[in-house]
Amino acid sequence: MEPRPDTAHRHEIRVTWGDCDPAKIVYTGRIPWFALDAINSWWVENLGGDGWFQMELDRNVGTPFVRLEMDFRAPITPRYPLVCHVWPVRLGETSITFRVDGMQDGALCFSSRTVSVFIDAAAFTKRTPPDDMRAVIERLLPGVE
Amino acid sequence: MEPRPDTAHRHEIRVTWGDCDPAKIVYTGRIPWFALDAINSWWVENLGGDGWFQMELDRNVGTPFVRLEMDFRAPITPRYPLVCHVWPVRLGETSITFRVDGMQDGALCFSSRTVSVFIDAAAFTKRTPPDDMRAVIERLLPGVE
Amino acid sequence: MEPRPDTAHRHEIRVTWGDCDPAKIVYTGRIPWFALDAINSWWVENLGGDGWFQMELDRNVGTPFVRLEMDFRAPITPRYPLVCHVWPVRLGETSITFRVDGMQDGALCFSSRTVSVFIDAAAFTKRTPPDDMRAVIERLLPGVE
Amino acid sequence: MEPRPDTAHRHEIRVTWGDCDPAKIVYTGRIPWFALDAINSWWVENLGGDGWFQMELDRNVGTPFVRLEMDFRAPITPRYPLVCHVWPVRLGETSITFRVDGMQDGALCFSSRTVSVFIDAAAFTKRTPPDDMRAVIERLLPGVE
Repeated sequence: MEPRPDTAHRHEIRVTWGDCDPAKIVYTGRIPWFALDAINSWWVENLGGDGWFQMELDRNVGTPFVRLEMDFRAPITPRYPLVCHVWPVRLGETSITFRVDGMQDGALCFSSRTVSVFIDAAAFTKRTPPDDMRAVIERLLPGVE
Repeated sequence: MEPRPDTAHRHEIRVTWGDCDPAKIVYTGRIPWFALDAINSWWVENLGGDGWFQMELDRNVGTPFVRLEMDFRAPITPRYPLVCHVWPVRLGETSITFRVDGMQDGALCFSSRTVSVFIDAAAFTKRTPPDDMRAVIERLLPGVE
Repeated sequence: MEPRPDTAHRHEIRVTWGDCDPAKIVYTGRIPWFALDAINSWWVENLGGDGWFQMELDRNVGTPFVRLEMDFRAPITPRYPLVCHVWPVRLGETSITFRVDGMQDGALCFSSRTVSVFIDAAAFTKRTPPDDMRAVIERLLPGVE
Repeated sequence: MEPRPDTAHRHEIRVTWGDCDPAKIVYTGRIPWFALDAINSWWVENLGGDGWFQMELDRNVGTPFVRLEMDFRAPITPRYPLVCHVWPVRLGETSITFRVDGMQDGALCFSSRTVSVFIDAAAFTKRTPPDDMRAVIERLLPGVE
């Protein structure tokens, strides 16, 4: 997947006993949840403290997912924090693509790429992103020189 | 993704209030969990009642995921059961690829494709699948004429 | 806790690998979730197919929990289905108390007692239960002779 | 429940969109999970960085729950961090009782009391707590003068 820019947002997750399965590693079903938490955290960081909850309720903008891809590279355990690096890689007319890399103790545990569409939350219809969101995303897209 | 064969295993999930987010649809983070439940159910159905728990503890065979892809096509709600159709699409030397289609009220909600590797559970090292598992999978691979 | 009447609703849960922690038994944090699923199932069974989702969205009635008690008696594993028995034990002016017993292979795994209040969902204010709900509950309260 | 001592451990949880149900507040089934995360965090804080995972795998000591009580006082939302205060209230021969208070924006959202027993993890048999754990707990029990 795409290489990580220095500007990627860093989101740290405390992995616990309850996240693990009998193989003593995080259950695969939990990992997409972690990646989504990291993306939500990207919005909180870059949208003045507003995550999906505030985007939906206060701004009437939803960003439902239409696509998720993940490569699982190494098991995740509670022995280290899970450091997630999040960044946008593409902004379409009505969609946004995020990458998340999850790392523990310097090793890559997973890489994900997700695509979400912007919607009018009340109407559940596609829309272009509001100007302030577009500005934030464009500023953080890598490789735009 | 690959078309669904008639022999796909059918796994039904009762979607509830607690699976939904404030948009009144199932939270995206729950959906990979559903797909995994469906794959586990495929093993239970085809391996004499043994799912991942028994495979790991009684047979010393693990099948950790190395790849997950999902397309989300329509929201999932508690108004209908979620009918998951599961089938293997490829058996490699040490890996297996499953497809899952999730449907509600006749409409496709999601399609997923996952790749798992066979491992010796105690040693956490790659291995070829045991003969009985290989036989079960080969019998159910579509398009092998 | 209160003894179980013959009329208790039976709700069966497929326990899986992903519900278990490294101790190879269901993680404690999952068990209240199971008990709640069983209570929701009681409503579905007794309210014409309507669970919390339909109660809230279609009937504007919420039943948020104000109290939960659970005794954990035996570990839960994926080796057996988890059979939950659910029944109401008390109907107050604006509240309802449910009991849930969770069993595997004939042994009691947990007992729970929960108290919920009836609310107007849109206003989030306390209310008495609608007549049809009250009738259903009163019919199934044990020991009312 | 018992009043909170000044020495209670503080554990902060980022509540998100995915924790909420269609009522736009955290789903009840998630709240015991939060309380357990807080108790695990108490161990991490007071046992040299070891939580349940390390206790079980490195020290062969488990602390399964036998009892859980929770009072839900106010809805939890993603608008504020959930600040959990955790402290032990009783140390028995082979058991420990923890209290957790969860607060948002200065208001009490839930209070919980849980009882766990100490076990030899490999044998799954009751035991007294190891000396170092006992010392840590006794030092933090309130009201022992």
